[in-house]
Amino acid sequence: MAEAQRLDGRACAAALDAKTAERASALTASGVQPHLAVVIVGDDPASHVYVRSKVKACERLGLKSTHVERPASISQEDLEAIVDELNADASVHGILVQSPLPPHLDEGAITDRIHPAKDVDGFHPVNLGRLVQGRTDGLLPCTPSGVMEMLRWANVPLEGKRAVVLGRSRIVGMPMALLLAARGADATVTVVHSRSEDVAERCREADVIVAAVGRPDMVQAEWVKPGAAVVDVGINRVDDDTRERGWRLAGDVHPDVASVARWLSPVPGGVGPMTIATLMANTVRAAEGLN
Amino acid sequence: MAEAQRLDGRACAAALDAKTAERASALTASGVQPHLAVVIVGDDPASHVYVRSKVKACERLGLKSTHVERPASISQEDLEAIVDELNADASVHGILVQSPLPPHLDEGAITDRIHPAKDVDGFHPVNLGRLVQGRTDGLLPCTPSGVMEMLRWANVPLEGKRAVVLGRSRIVGMPMALLLAARGADATVTVVHSRSEDVAERCREADVIVAAVGRPDMVQAEWVKPGAAVVDVGINRVDDDTRERGWRLAGDVHPDVASVARWLSPVPGGVGPMTIATLMANTVRAAEGLN
Repeated sequence: MAEAQRLDGRACAAALDAKTAERASALTASGVQPHLAVVIVGDDPASHVYVRSKVKACERLGLKSTHVERPASISQEDLEAIVDELNADASVHGILVQSPLPPHLDEGAITDRIHPAKDVDGFHPVNLGRLVQGRTDGLLPCTPSGVMEMLRWANVPLEGKRAVVLGRSRIVGMPMALLLAARGADATVTVVHSRSEDVAERCREADVIVAAVGRPDMVQAEWVKPGAAVVDVGINRVDDDTRERGWRLAGDVHPDVASVARWLSPVPGGVGPMTIATLMANTVRAAEGLN
Repeated sequence: MAEAQRLDGRACAAALDAKTAERASALTASGVQPHLAVVIVGDDPASHVYVRSKVKACERLGLKSTHVERPASISQEDLEAIVDELNADASVHGILVQSPLPPHLDEGAITDRIHPAKDVDGFHPVNLGRLVQGRTDGLLPCTPSGVMEMLRWANVPLEGKRAVVLGRSRIVGMPMALLLAARGADATVTVVHSRSEDVAERCREADVIVAAVGRPDMVQAEWVKPGAAVVDVGINRVDDDTRERGWRLAGDVHPDVASVARWLSPVPGGVGPMTIATLMANTVRAAEGLN
């Protein structure tokens, strides 16, 4: 059987990055360099890796970045004061507070506090609510927006087609479903989650599957309709004795799906790069004052 | 074949109203009478009928209401000033601007201007966005919230079941899908719309159908799985020469569906009364300061 076409997130992100860099350069020439402020609390190594890659992406594309680091012991009040200051700073266009925060902090309250026009993560209720209203011209959540960009880039047909979103998180699943169902995308979207019956059957009915559940290799080859497009949002660490470091990254989709699907996004190198590329595009968008 | 059980919106609304009146009375006794301000622009007769029924519901349940009427010629600025004044008035707990507005006015800007804590219609992006975040404890859009109340009242099983929402409007379809998919309801939800392929087949797969498209008698008996629950949100005027007034009200669901479905909401007397009952409950909720 033919192997699925790889939905190459690195190539797609490079195409988006080229446009973002161009827009950033035009803005900078007009005297306004797009500027992302990244706030990180505590010393979670994975979070620091993510933040470093975001800061590097800014450098690469000509955006200014400010990196605010605070110890895990910071109070809610002090963290909110940082957000308030960045909200008030006209030279800052995008604000991102790296998740997860230490358990004593109220992450929802921080998300709600970032000014919606600077919310380049797209997690503020106002930005999510616009999605419910069918307005897709604002600051969209980076991962679902990156998935849409990848599907368009690969010319995956969506209009009238059946799409299944696996997972109903506020960050991926729910906004993903809204974007796929919105005018212009026009898919018939089903949200499948931990309480759903007959998950495998629901998947088999789909022309497009977006898996965002955080369960390694969950989507099996038998779950996929031949010719479907499968997008793997999962990034799971699984034990692997054959690797020197003792683990490998696995998506939510079993690698065997490549023999059934027509399109498949790899992990790593699929959705991951698109998330950062969308964050950069959102920051430039915020600097352009479109939101 | 047995006839479907009638999802009696009047009886369900009466049960909700009884609770709302009790809460309103407790608040009034403590010195805070729940207070709804209804703004109506122009002289559309249907809108005036709706507004009168809302004002009457307030009287019946012990809520205070203020009825603001303005001519169709009002400017955006003046209408916004009314909203600002009601936002600032601590004695007003709920604000509703009756839709539709005359075409020269920007309805979206008015919706966005109402303070989210007074947005008893549940249309503000912040309130819709909370739904995307899975938070269903805020001010929910009246019609979808009323449908959920009716399904719970009739003990229609939802967990893990397949629900199809026909229509993707910001007021009904999209929030309806989010509520059905949310934790606690836990249905597997599919949004079907004008660009969907095989609409009849999608409906036939569903254990629960919520029709909100505004096309009279669209959902046929052959579209419905025997034993399904069918909720009809449509209120359409269709010509009828046998009636003295020359028209009758028709839902989006054909009456023959009653011979196939296990539950069916009538039009009128189904979702309509639930929408107003939910508006009243939202106003009391806003007065209780829960939002």
